[in-house]
Amino acid sequence: MLHGIMIKILILHGPNLNLLGQREPDVYGRQTLDDINASLRDMAAGRGAELIIQQSNHEGVLIDAIHDAAGQAAGDTVAGIVINPGAFTHTSVALRDAIAAVGLPCVEVHLSNIYAREPFRHNSLLAPVCLGQIGGFGARSYTLGLTALLDHLSSTETSQ
Amino acid sequence: MLHGIMIKILILHGPNLNLLGQREPDVYGRQTLDDINASLRDMAAGRGAELIIQQSNHEGVLIDAIHDAAGQAAGDTVAGIVINPGAFTHTSVALRDAIAAVGLPCVEVHLSNIYAREPFRHNSLLAPVCLGQIGGFGARSYTLGLTALLDHLSSTETSQ
Amino acid sequence: MLHGIMIKILILHGPNLNLLGQREPDVYGRQTLDDINASLRDMAAGRGAELIIQQSNHEGVLIDAIHDAAGQAAGDTVAGIVINPGAFTHTSVALRDAIAAVGLPCVEVHLSNIYAREPFRHNSLLAPVCLGQIGGFGARSYTLGLTALLDHLSSTETSQ
Amino acid sequence: MLHGIMIKILILHGPNLNLLGQREPDVYGRQTLDDINASLRDMAAGRGAELIIQQSNHEGVLIDAIHDAAGQAAGDTVAGIVINPGAFTHTSVALRDAIAAVGLPCVEVHLSNIYAREPFRHNSLLAPVCLGQIGGFGARSYTLGLTALLDHLSSTETSQ
Amino acid sequence: MLHGIMIKILILHGPNLNLLGQREPDVYGRQTLDDINASLRDMAAGRGAELIIQQSNHEGVLIDAIHDAAGQAAGDTVAGIVINPGAFTHTSVALRDAIAAVGLPCVEVHLSNIYAREPFRHNSLLAPVCLGQIGGFGARSYTLGLTALLDHLSSTETSQ
Amino acid sequence: MLHGIMIKILILHGPNLNLLGQREPDVYGRQTLDDINASLRDMAAGRGAELIIQQSNHEGVLIDAIHDAAGQAAGDTVAGIVINPGAFTHTSVALRDAIAAVGLPCVEVHLSNIYAREPFRHNSLLAPVCLGQIGGFGARSYTLGLTALLDHLSSTETSQ
Amino acid sequence: MLHGIMIKILILHGPNLNLLGQREPDVYGRQTLDDINASLRDMAAGRGAELIIQQSNHEGVLIDAIHDAAGQAAGDTVAGIVINPGAFTHTSVALRDAIAAVGLPCVEVHLSNIYAREPFRHNSLLAPVCLGQIGGFGARSYTLGLTALLDHLSSTETSQ
Amino acid sequence: MLHGIMIKILILHGPNLNLLGQREPDVYGRQTLDDINASLRDMAAGRGAELIIQQSNHEGVLIDAIHDAAGQAAGDTVAGIVINPGAFTHTSVALRDAIAAVGLPCVEVHLSNIYAREPFRHNSLLAPVCLGQIGGFGARSYTLGLTALLDHLSSTETSQ
Amino acid sequence: MLHGIMIKILILHGPNLNLLGQREPDVYGRQTLDDINASLRDMAAGRGAELIIQQSNHEGVLIDAIHDAAGQAAGDTVAGIVINPGAFTHTSVALRDAIAAVGLPCVEVHLSNIYAREPFRHNSLLAPVCLGQIGGFGARSYTLGLTALLDHLSSTETSQ
Amino acid sequence: MLHGIMIKILILHGPNLNLLGQREPDVYGRQTLDDINASLRDMAAGRGAELIIQQSNHEGVLIDAIHDAAGQAAGDTVAGIVINPGAFTHTSVALRDAIAAVGLPCVEVHLSNIYAREPFRHNSLLAPVCLGQIGGFGARSYTLGLTALLDHLSSTETSQ
Amino acid sequence: MLHGIMIKILILHGPNLNLLGQREPDVYGRQTLDDINASLRDMAAGRGAELIIQQSNHEGVLIDAIHDAAGQAAGDTVAGIVINPGAFTHTSVALRDAIAAVGLPCVEVHLSNIYAREPFRHNSLLAPVCLGQIGGFGARSYTLGLTALLDHLSSTETSQ
Amino acid sequence: MLHGIMIKILILHGPNLNLLGQREPDVYGRQTLDDINASLRDMAAGRGAELIIQQSNHEGVLIDAIHDAAGQAAGDTVAGIVINPGAFTHTSVALRDAIAAVGLPCVEVHLSNIYAREPFRHNSLLAPVCLGQIGGFGARSYTLGLTALLDHLSSTETSQ
Repeated sequence: MLHGIMIKILILHGPNLNLLGQREPDVYGRQTLDDINASLRDMAAGRGAELIIQQSNHEGVLIDAIHDAAGQAAGDTVAGIVINPGAFTHTSVALRDAIAAVGLPCVEVHLSNIYAREPFRHNSLLAPVCLGQIGGFGARSYTLGLTALLDHLSSTETSQ
Repeated sequence: MLHGIMIKILILHGPNLNLLGQREPDVYGRQTLDDINASLRDMAAGRGAELIIQQSNHEGVLIDAIHDAAGQAAGDTVAGIVINPGAFTHTSVALRDAIAAVGLPCVEVHLSNIYAREPFRHNSLLAPVCLGQIGGFGARSYTLGLTALLDHLSSTETSQ
Repeated sequence: MLHGIMIKILILHGPNLNLLGQREPDVYGRQTLDDINASLRDMAAGRGAELIIQQSNHEGVLIDAIHDAAGQAAGDTVAGIVINPGAFTHTSVALRDAIAAVGLPCVEVHLSNIYAREPFRHNSLLAPVCLGQIGGFGARSYTLGLTALLDHLSSTETSQ
Repeated sequence: MLHGIMIKILILHGPNLNLLGQREPDVYGRQTLDDINASLRDMAAGRGAELIIQQSNHEGVLIDAIHDAAGQAAGDTVAGIVINPGAFTHTSVALRDAIAAVGLPCVEVHLSNIYAREPFRHNSLLAPVCLGQIGGFGARSYTLGLTALLDHLSSTETSQ
Repeated sequence: MLHGIMIKILILHGPNLNLLGQREPDVYGRQTLDDINASLRDMAAGRGAELIIQQSNHEGVLIDAIHDAAGQAAGDTVAGIVINPGAFTHTSVALRDAIAAVGLPCVEVHLSNIYAREPFRHNSLLAPVCLGQIGGFGARSYTLGLTALLDHLSSTETSQ
Repeated sequence: MLHGIMIKILILHGPNLNLLGQREPDVYGRQTLDDINASLRDMAAGRGAELIIQQSNHEGVLIDAIHDAAGQAAGDTVAGIVINPGAFTHTSVALRDAIAAVGLPCVEVHLSNIYAREPFRHNSLLAPVCLGQIGGFGARSYTLGLTALLDHLSSTETSQ
Repeated sequence: MLHGIMIKILILHGPNLNLLGQREPDVYGRQTLDDINASLRDMAAGRGAELIIQQSNHEGVLIDAIHDAAGQAAGDTVAGIVINPGAFTHTSVALRDAIAAVGLPCVEVHLSNIYAREPFRHNSLLAPVCLGQIGGFGARSYTLGLTALLDHLSSTETSQ
Repeated sequence: MLHGIMIKILILHGPNLNLLGQREPDVYGRQTLDDINASLRDMAAGRGAELIIQQSNHEGVLIDAIHDAAGQAAGDTVAGIVINPGAFTHTSVALRDAIAAVGLPCVEVHLSNIYAREPFRHNSLLAPVCLGQIGGFGARSYTLGLTALLDHLSSTETSQ
Repeated sequence: MLHGIMIKILILHGPNLNLLGQREPDVYGRQTLDDINASLRDMAAGRGAELIIQQSNHEGVLIDAIHDAAGQAAGDTVAGIVINPGAFTHTSVALRDAIAAVGLPCVEVHLSNIYAREPFRHNSLLAPVCLGQIGGFGARSYTLGLTALLDHLSSTETSQ
Repeated sequence: MLHGIMIKILILHGPNLNLLGQREPDVYGRQTLDDINASLRDMAAGRGAELIIQQSNHEGVLIDAIHDAAGQAAGDTVAGIVINPGAFTHTSVALRDAIAAVGLPCVEVHLSNIYAREPFRHNSLLAPVCLGQIGGFGARSYTLGLTALLDHLSSTETSQ
Repeated sequence: MLHGIMIKILILHGPNLNLLGQREPDVYGRQTLDDINASLRDMAAGRGAELIIQQSNHEGVLIDAIHDAAGQAAGDTVAGIVINPGAFTHTSVALRDAIAAVGLPCVEVHLSNIYAREPFRHNSLLAPVCLGQIGGFGARSYTLGLTALLDHLSSTETSQ
Repeated sequence: MLHGIMIKILILHGPNLNLLGQREPDVYGRQTLDDINASLRDMAAGRGAELIIQQSNHEGVLIDAIHDAAGQAAGDTVAGIVINPGAFTHTSVALRDAIAAVGLPCVEVHLSNIYAREPFRHNSLLAPVCLGQIGGFGARSYTLGLTALLDHLSSTETSQ
């Protein structure tokens, strides 16, 4: 909670993440997206935050979700974004522009270590407009990312 | 009007342009997309043209709109396109192919001077299949673009 | 038929292919997408297979279709994919990841010879996760692709 | 007119543009440079502006002209530049530095769509120091460019 | 048969393909080149065509073979080429020029998926002068390639 | 604690990090390296771990420290490394090889968002041999990194 | 002579060629530009042609000379150009455009073998718009170039 | 003749040049290789030289020919080489090394203007070890090349 | 003075340097070119040297000046050059060739630190043919450059 | 000898190596290829091995030789290859594939230090499929290479 | 002296500079590092400055020295750095970061003209964080560099 | 022994080689560095040479060792260097400069085949200043390297 108000955080999962746990468990682990979301909600609750969670294989849906987050009524206080952009990490200037446009602090997370994979996965178009990046820790990348965002929001509050 | 028939022009706004005027006014100006659309409709009316206007954050929706424009019944005479492709400028081969496929004259416009921004914004995948490109003049890029398209259509008519 | 069961094949047509036959016949031939689909269904029927066919200008819709194919009930046996990714060939890491994720054998086809066109069309992001690639033979690329996939499935069956 | 004073605009034509209308009419149209200049003077007169027009095949002469424009006596009010840098677009850092040095608003225009031509014409060294760029509309690129500059000057005046 | 005349097709196997079936069966399968040639002859016979088959590790021998094919007496009707250029795919401009020079329709085939291998195998110097390319289906790439060529020749005949 | 034994973690700070808090506080924050180390020790203590902490401006000293960590007697149980390689991130193959050679799980952390800085800072030579990377959160990058490492060690223990 | 009329050829010498024979004789030989010009005039006279010869260190002067050549009165018949563009070979798009614009056959000559020198001298911007290129034969490159041009003009005349 | 001895010149024609005159006359002209060889022999005879002429589609045969030329008995005096390396221009380091190894003066000729063709034809591996290069003048490139070589040999003789 | 003779030094100022002190004082300082020239003349006088000073926005004029310097009568003894090539630093091969051709020792100076500016300013075409380079010290770069040149000339004299 | 059987080693010399000792002795030394072969035979005899030696300027002949080596009857035991690929080092994917296909241990040798020569000689296409590379020691590179190969074969034998 | 206080300047010599005068005198001159240091001390004394001089082949030692300089007690007034980074110029991001971190004005000097040497020596990682760069004047590069630094310090003092 | 004097050879082992035999035996073999050193000392003794052996993870220590070797008193006769630069192969210009500066013959060795590993390991900064390179033979690369160096020294002695 910030100033005693329940803050909201947007959790965005990019393309193919709906398959998590069912496919290629050797690479991405056995946890499903629902498992991850449940863990995140637990952690958020413990820190007085509420989560809006969305997964889509459509770039446009993710952009719309970011716009909607920024347009939330003041009482709702959407304070930041944790995003795993999946394959859009490397191709979507539009997603980057959406994050830059709404001006909310954003943490980029990845399940796998993208720097240990194919060269075309080594570049993130979103990284320069995000607060920071966390990758390589499987499902824990998400919880570390949410921690990072909430800590950032707390410290910003404190320093004001 | 061409041959005494009210012609139609498709105005397409790409991703994140719905936020115009609300976000980053220092970069993109204080005019909203509605303001721009109103100016364009005024100008079109004065030159005997009608506008079909669409904004989307979804690449597929923009492609569908281009296809629809080309499929308009003859009496409706959709004669050309003014497009601000936003971030898709740099990433969408599909949008480029759509423009090339329908064969309508198309003018590419940009609010900002894309050549004075990050290097990845210096390349337009759409430019080679457009009539021309106008950028850097804020909301006026649109009105200049519509003027360019209408003048082109008039001169083509004349030279036939 | 495999083991006496009617197998299903997913046929995916990427962006702008709905315009086939109507536009630029010099480049893409005079056959419409319906003509191609009819030929494919004939060929499939002759080999005891059934086709699920989908065209979309939306990357997300194509990804969803691939996910759905993989999620078909066992009795339905969706056994493989023939995809003409169109412009997404060169830009969609998300489509590549979808194919890799579902693990179904996939054949990439192209109407035109992409290596005889603009340099940006010489690279296929999907090729490395497909069984193989067939391009340059117009509508016949599809029938060759379906043949290749069905033969592959038969031989795999045989070798087990 | 700005503040009731007749403003002056510098129109600069780069190398080989003196041949306009005489050579390669299929590419550059049949209008001569004199025709274009006459149209520009008409348009300028209608908006209370006066034009200083110069063409040269010498990079140094164009730079000198830009310096001279900036050095005009205050009463003369040279307010901006419309430049078609021709081949110097791609090679002249000196011209770029001249524009940046004098600090006058400058609009870059091109007769042809430089992005639909040879790769070495896709890069403009001047673009990053200009207000904006207009290209691909033949002689109309100039009138659009002058319109853009005059509108920019008016709006700047208004907003002061 | 074309116009009731037995047509001839040149089948060319590039360097190291003589080792097929004996070496690296995991990569290239267990079929020998003789097996493949037998399958091709069967298929050709069934479609009224005769095959001239040659394998060489010498670039010059392959070029000579292409020249000879083009120089066949009219009654012999060498109508097209199916080539697996092997390693010469990536290095031989001379082979490319030979194909372009004789003007016969040519289909490029590869046993393996060259786009899933080392980066230097992703570029084919021959592809731009061939009708199309088929790769990744093992020995079946050849039969698909011969089918594609014969179908192409039939359709060209029909359309005349 | 792992199996009831106090585990040890090596914390390595690369070149110039000794200046932290004293220099460029706008970029790197006001916390000194001692502050960060104190926080890390607190966190470690709370999770039953002990820290070996070293800072050096000498690449060789950092390599020696990694070797020493791997050579600790079994009872001491040095279980992993958290490293902020600083400028060596982009230049030290030797440091990368040291991490790969000792085979200990390693987490790479950065105070700043290296992807929002100069292009030569966008590439990490160490990333491919680390478990994961965390950057952009100031001093919190370290605590997140230590959390990630300890959680990884716990889960590995659990899954055995 | 062509059709019994004395034809004129423009000989253009680019920057620094005025120093020929005086400077760096080891690289460029001991013949002065006057020596070369005298040889060229002798050869031209023997073949019924007259030469217009110009050297300049100014790119603009060379462009003007090309324009003037194209503007010669019909009776004067300037039929072609032999140019040693010197350093402008590698930097002047404007000179290239001038040659393309006037449409006269042009032969590019170089004293030295530019492909055996620094890498930045290996690319000629003018080559693609010239008939051909001759380099590496010292002063003889000029006489070979003039021969090539005159032979070309004769053969063109003959074939009409 | 040099010192009253009949000198010999090696004329080498690279791959596909045996097709000259028969194929693609629009690109390469209607003269056959025999026509060109006859012209060259005439010219050589007139200047007291004898020609050894060889064409091959085999890189190795061309290298052998160069070695043989250098190994001619002293009385035979093979004094230099005129080579049209065809496609080997761009790919054969071995041919380059052969020319460098024998140390004979060599003139590189091309029928077409290789700098006005595909980018991969813009680089000659042989150029740096040749005396000079002549290209773009069709069959005349050969006679110009032979002239250049004979003149070079004469002048070298003279200057001794 | 060298050997008791008043030596002459050529000081060359490239394009846009005439604007010095009037424009962009934050970048280039408040000293005018006249101020700089006066300082240089003072320093030269103190060391028995005389300066020939020229500024031009025309590349050709600068080349001519270098040629003229080299052509000074022996009694005048032009001994070296200090040049600030401005924008021509990055684009003028002709200027480079002029310096190399005349063989006079040349010192390259820059007001600003070109390596801290845009990437296209990081490369100097002139540097490899100059004695050395001094940049980043504002007007003092000139006096340091003149010192370096005079010291070089003295030491050469001494060592003879 | 391996297991008391006389083993055979294939020694392959690539293009232009037949000229050794006769040409460019400063670069390649004064030893002829026969001298080198004699030394190698001596060394081989001393270690119970027999050599098959072949030189060719034809890539195809070298590939055939490698295939033949692999096809030797078992009693003959061709156990490995020492190859100096000469210029084919940098251009022949076919030779690389031949070595990979036959699966014999292969040692790559070079007379000169290829990394101290032209940049295009710094890359070896064969290196990744060879056991190792030895270069820069003149004729001794061969004897070191044969030693390396024989030692490798012995150790492999021992470790089985 | 600044404000009547003896200022201190740090002179740093990078790797291999201890060999100066003993090795490769043709390239680096015959002066030893002691000679250079003596000259610098003389010059410094004459201008009221004291030098701290250090040479090391260890990157870490150089970084430590920079840190120490910045940490000098106020009374000691270390005011700036003159550094010849030697080979570290091209490879050490850590040294660059050290200079940027301590914020002292730094002048980069080189004995040789690095732009006239191997391409990998043309880039300086340190240049963008230094005041300026002086190179190519042998030992005099140091004295010019010290002059530049002391003048800069004086002028800064004056302008305050 | 050279001239009856016991010569000394410096053996240098770069970073991480102290771990040899203990870590990653599959890649680097099971021999420890002590084993290798013992073999080298044996071989050296047999040829009348003495070894100075040093391993370090510090670039500066290796450079110092090279300097020291060159500074040995004449009676000690350090005659050459065998170096395995490890990771510094690809990053250390300083080490390269040290070798070039001392002018001792140097042989570069590698345990693994660096050309069969990651692309960033394919380039050796040291190779151009070494006599030659030997890699890919495990511990035998060292003994081959020492042989190469001793043979080189003997032959140099002989040829004097």
